[in-house]
Amino acid sequence: MLQTETKDEPATATGNMRCLIKHHAGTELEYRSDRAIPEPGPRDVRIKVSKAGICGTDRHIWEWDEWAASRIPVGIVTGHEFVGIIDKVGSAVTKYEPGLRVSAEGHTTKGLDYNSRTGNAHIATDTKIFGIDRDGCFAEYIVVPEENVWPVHPSIPDKVAAVMDPLGNAVHTVMAADVSAKTVLVSGTGIIGLMAVTVAKAAGASRIFATDINPPRLALAKKLGAVESYDAREGTDWIKDIKKQTRGEGVDVVLEMSGASVAIDQSFRALRAGGTAALLGLPAKPVTFDFNENIIFKGCTVFGINGRRMFETWYQMEELLLSGRLELNDIITHEFPLEKYKEAFETMISGEGIKVVLDIA
Amino acid sequence: MLQTETKDEPATATGNMRCLIKHHAGTELEYRSDRAIPEPGPRDVRIKVSKAGICGTDRHIWEWDEWAASRIPVGIVTGHEFVGIIDKVGSAVTKYEPGLRVSAEGHTTKGLDYNSRTGNAHIATDTKIFGIDRDGCFAEYIVVPEENVWPVHPSIPDKVAAVMDPLGNAVHTVMAADVSAKTVLVSGTGIIGLMAVTVAKAAGASRIFATDINPPRLALAKKLGAVESYDAREGTDWIKDIKKQTRGEGVDVVLEMSGASVAIDQSFRALRAGGTAALLGLPAKPVTFDFNENIIFKGCTVFGINGRRMFETWYQMEELLLSGRLELNDIITHEFPLEKYKEAFETMISGEGIKVVLDIA
Amino acid sequence: MLQTETKDEPATATGNMRCLIKHHAGTELEYRSDRAIPEPGPRDVRIKVSKAGICGTDRHIWEWDEWAASRIPVGIVTGHEFVGIIDKVGSAVTKYEPGLRVSAEGHTTKGLDYNSRTGNAHIATDTKIFGIDRDGCFAEYIVVPEENVWPVHPSIPDKVAAVMDPLGNAVHTVMAADVSAKTVLVSGTGIIGLMAVTVAKAAGASRIFATDINPPRLALAKKLGAVESYDAREGTDWIKDIKKQTRGEGVDVVLEMSGASVAIDQSFRALRAGGTAALLGLPAKPVTFDFNENIIFKGCTVFGINGRRMFETWYQMEELLLSGRLELNDIITHEFPLEKYKEAFETMISGEGIKVVLDIA
Amino acid sequence: MLQTETKDEPATATGNMRCLIKHHAGTELEYRSDRAIPEPGPRDVRIKVSKAGICGTDRHIWEWDEWAASRIPVGIVTGHEFVGIIDKVGSAVTKYEPGLRVSAEGHTTKGLDYNSRTGNAHIATDTKIFGIDRDGCFAEYIVVPEENVWPVHPSIPDKVAAVMDPLGNAVHTVMAADVSAKTVLVSGTGIIGLMAVTVAKAAGASRIFATDINPPRLALAKKLGAVESYDAREGTDWIKDIKKQTRGEGVDVVLEMSGASVAIDQSFRALRAGGTAALLGLPAKPVTFDFNENIIFKGCTVFGINGRRMFETWYQMEELLLSGRLELNDIITHEFPLEKYKEAFETMISGEGIKVVLDIA
Repeated sequence: MLQTETKDEPATATGNMRCLIKHHAGTELEYRSDRAIPEPGPRDVRIKVSKAGICGTDRHIWEWDEWAASRIPVGIVTGHEFVGIIDKVGSAVTKYEPGLRVSAEGHTTKGLDYNSRTGNAHIATDTKIFGIDRDGCFAEYIVVPEENVWPVHPSIPDKVAAVMDPLGNAVHTVMAADVSAKTVLVSGTGIIGLMAVTVAKAAGASRIFATDINPPRLALAKKLGAVESYDAREGTDWIKDIKKQTRGEGVDVVLEMSGASVAIDQSFRALRAGGTAALLGLPAKPVTFDFNENIIFKGCTVFGINGRRMFETWYQMEELLLSGRLELNDIITHEFPLEKYKEAFETMISGEGIKVVLDIA
Repeated sequence: MLQTETKDEPATATGNMRCLIKHHAGTELEYRSDRAIPEPGPRDVRIKVSKAGICGTDRHIWEWDEWAASRIPVGIVTGHEFVGIIDKVGSAVTKYEPGLRVSAEGHTTKGLDYNSRTGNAHIATDTKIFGIDRDGCFAEYIVVPEENVWPVHPSIPDKVAAVMDPLGNAVHTVMAADVSAKTVLVSGTGIIGLMAVTVAKAAGASRIFATDINPPRLALAKKLGAVESYDAREGTDWIKDIKKQTRGEGVDVVLEMSGASVAIDQSFRALRAGGTAALLGLPAKPVTFDFNENIIFKGCTVFGINGRRMFETWYQMEELLLSGRLELNDIITHEFPLEKYKEAFETMISGEGIKVVLDIA
Repeated sequence: MLQTETKDEPATATGNMRCLIKHHAGTELEYRSDRAIPEPGPRDVRIKVSKAGICGTDRHIWEWDEWAASRIPVGIVTGHEFVGIIDKVGSAVTKYEPGLRVSAEGHTTKGLDYNSRTGNAHIATDTKIFGIDRDGCFAEYIVVPEENVWPVHPSIPDKVAAVMDPLGNAVHTVMAADVSAKTVLVSGTGIIGLMAVTVAKAAGASRIFATDINPPRLALAKKLGAVESYDAREGTDWIKDIKKQTRGEGVDVVLEMSGASVAIDQSFRALRAGGTAALLGLPAKPVTFDFNENIIFKGCTVFGINGRRMFETWYQMEELLLSGRLELNDIITHEFPLEKYKEAFETMISGEGIKVVLDIA
Repeated sequence: MLQTETKDEPATATGNMRCLIKHHAGTELEYRSDRAIPEPGPRDVRIKVSKAGICGTDRHIWEWDEWAASRIPVGIVTGHEFVGIIDKVGSAVTKYEPGLRVSAEGHTTKGLDYNSRTGNAHIATDTKIFGIDRDGCFAEYIVVPEENVWPVHPSIPDKVAAVMDPLGNAVHTVMAADVSAKTVLVSGTGIIGLMAVTVAKAAGASRIFATDINPPRLALAKKLGAVESYDAREGTDWIKDIKKQTRGEGVDVVLEMSGASVAIDQSFRALRAGGTAALLGLPAKPVTFDFNENIIFKGCTVFGINGRRMFETWYQMEELLLSGRLELNDIITHEFPLEKYKEAFETMISGEGIKVVLDIA
């Protein structure tokens, strides 16, 4: 078993806990203090949650949009980004012991299909996600399969460990595209796009360009290491400028984080022949797309990116954090106690905050 | 210099030659016997053409469609697939001598940009193509830069050597997708799709499925090695059938050869999560495409395929031909002397012939 | 849970079973019929063994060589290649049910280290192997962790399913080297070398060359698809012959299956610059090796191959078997009932048999 | 043609030039001022040399060791690392014009073999090298084939452009091994090893460890970004220390720059299972090597590295230089005018200098 970090095993909890639940088929979440602390099954561990990040997905659930209404079971505890301490393990658990500080991968699978058995469980046919399909981490305790546990390196602070899930999206996208010694366009500087800027730089991108339609985020992209950031509302001269800076050819790599159909098209136009595009941003609907000009004539490579590789991405993330080169302080802007969850969501939804974290312990 | 195959150097030709030219801005080509035999520049070789294949592109030029009208300079000799014998070399040529049997890559480039200098000249920024941008091979003689020459292995017959250009498209697509020990869907069984069936089998695909809307071509696909071929006009049950035969997951690889927007969409639906699609077929216009379901959620990889890698694809082609496993006899269906070019084009356009070759020597 | 193939769940067994054990620190194995049938732990399945293959490793254990004496615990049941039917599952098993026909990967790991968590458990830091470190499959029943189970496709006969472990070594080596449309040298035509010949051909190798010092095995290599097989005792002209057939450059790929130091050196000399060597054969001791000429000046790539990728190799193996192109009938030469184990081992050790299988059911 | 940087075409030179030649079959070089300025052939360019770097190979030639005596034709101008201005072009040159500031790849090839035609001319079968097989760059003028020219980005100073050849060795090694978000051991901190430290960091290595037996170089490795540097004369505890810092597993990547047989063995012991080793350092003779423990059991990948990829490495180098993250000032320690070549060589040979550059213009 992996060594625990504390010698004194904590007394395991019973009784009720505080949490946020999707209480009705409508907007917002509800705070409760009377939810029964869950018991782990034979192959599960129970984790006492320290901090949890609020994801864009949580915003969809809060706002109860069409996607949320079609997917989220009313009554569940939401939230899927977190760090905490293992508090109890199931009878057949062999890998971990109480006392270990951990995060966890949110995608669960039975482990039977091709991708689950070849290091790609993140795209299994039967994936379920904490806080979306079953109880999540906006709670004092969460139960997860031991397979999903990620022991957190001691040098990584809780605030950062709480957001390894979205950071992992950025790392997965950057590493899939192979940015080392290459020029990179980050298309869309939302939370994960901004993370992608600092990740790409730490991972060896030579020169990073960023586009968005939000000037403060564009300014932050430059602070995080982009050599240029362009306001895409001001026409497409930025594509010419990028070509001018790249031997007239375009960037080696596009990281598409916006999901905006115009941005997807323009990004491909800024990509050199033979270049690579990694697509993470989800368009709201099907896109009218010129395959000939954007992909086929240019001989480009496109990667669809979903979740985090289980668990290659997590190792890469740990290494990038240990490198000391990731700049996350300007991205994780706010922390609120669980009880101030309304203020936390409002800060995030208004755009005043970027990544907002809930303190739960 | 590469050894020539014949000891007696042929007397170099002068005077006029027979050829097909694009004589006006309209349909068809014109046969001429009074075209001056071209002289090679300092770095060019002149080749006496033995046989030349008629490409789908030549059909566009024959029919003078919108693309042809916008690209083809009236007056040029057309044709870009051929085999012949080097007949004269320019003053600064260092690699080849007269007498050598060769084909040639049709894409020319100045060799100055990123792709030209890294083994990917097929997607250079300044590519010109024989028989499209300058005089081609439907003629007794063609002049090409020595960089473009491909010495043909003695065991490969002229009939096959004449169609290494389109065969190279199929090989490029198959090899980019890495089909070894994988299930493969060939979407579209036109000339290159049929070639892709036999190439994929020779290259190690475990099981090949094919779709099209042309029953004789589907039957031929099975003869060439497909385990199933489906008429896509009969609904989408074929996708279910493929999934049933692939652990419920879908094929590992899609080779999209049709360019039909419906086929592109359906192919991606038949592709397993984490699978690879190589796109060669050119849609007539932009396609409404569901990036989320087809690429991003499934974590798929997409390769745009254009031309042939210069010259990795040519080496792969030679090896596949030397393996003795490529079945091209049912694909190269007709040969006509140059003078019977009208019959040749009609045979190809009617669908009676698949790959039609002109005898020129 | 994965669907079982039989509706009637077999009555689970109790009592004693027949098996072969390493009964003392010396040669041979001992047949027993009084070994207690093992009980599965919470996460294990118990499998009623149908057939089991005898591996070269089993021969080392039989002959009790230095390696065996240093590693094998006296008293264990040996054997690690098999097929059988799940007969009982542990209390926390979630993936499989009794009645399923399965083989199993022999490498077990706790699943905690980098390789275990990234699809490469075959090279984990804490690997244990059935029949080497713990009880194996030369027995009526074997207990294995459910993670290690491989459901066998219905079209694969028991005789073949029993040897998926060594076949997987060959497939792992071939697939690591990427042989599609390439020339391949198989260095050493022992059991796995011969398998590698048929696997490489099925996986798309264009032309296969083989070397060994055993004429009947060399003849079999040609029967299985090698274009040339060379007796390495007759000097090194075979290297010149290979170069003559490969544009003067050498083969694209070497699959080193012999472990002989001379063969390793010669194989690299037959490899072209920029080629790939996959090394499976284990030299008996450190080798004096010319890194400059063999690897560095030529810019070659070398892969060390161990076990089978868990479980990518198993999927590849299934596909290659489903392709119908693997020729194993001449490799699996003998079957004996468990009780005739002495005859079985002697047949294998004498070289009269190649792969020898024990019938246990 | 590529745009020249100066409008006024310089008058082309005639007459004699200053240079260093290998004047006899013995030690040292000789300074001459009466060498005829060479004329370019039809496909060559002539370059007026500004600065040239002294390579370890030049030291071998200076010291006239066994290798030099067996390879170097007495009478040639030596030197192969340089930057200068194109001064004259041959009659069939199509790519460049006089006035362009350039460096050049030193490997020339006829362009006929597999590697030359697939982006890997650095490992062609017929490679010749400037300053080794034919006249080099320790001279006012050098003639090179236009294929070998590399236009230097305006932002790169002459001092750095003069050493792109050895920097390219470091970049080739680092990029082959794929260091992004990985731990890296640089084994040997000579000139190229030190360059590899700064290159690996710029290319995204998370944590770099270095070994050598030269304390000042080890100190410089830390200054350039290594987290630890170990004196290999002090036993092998450094391997334990590396494992302690890498989850007990070892580094992801080894860059072997020393060529010392002990260092090669120890580096592999510090490499994790499944890791990658890129070997650039040339052992003086064959090495006794444990393939089982070092490569096969661990499932490692090994790349032999020679020269620079033509021209992928040059593009990567340019991008890494443009990133502003390469620290070369502490590596390029000295510059001397050509006439002070003795002092230059002595500074380099004594170890007082690291990379020493000659000013020639």
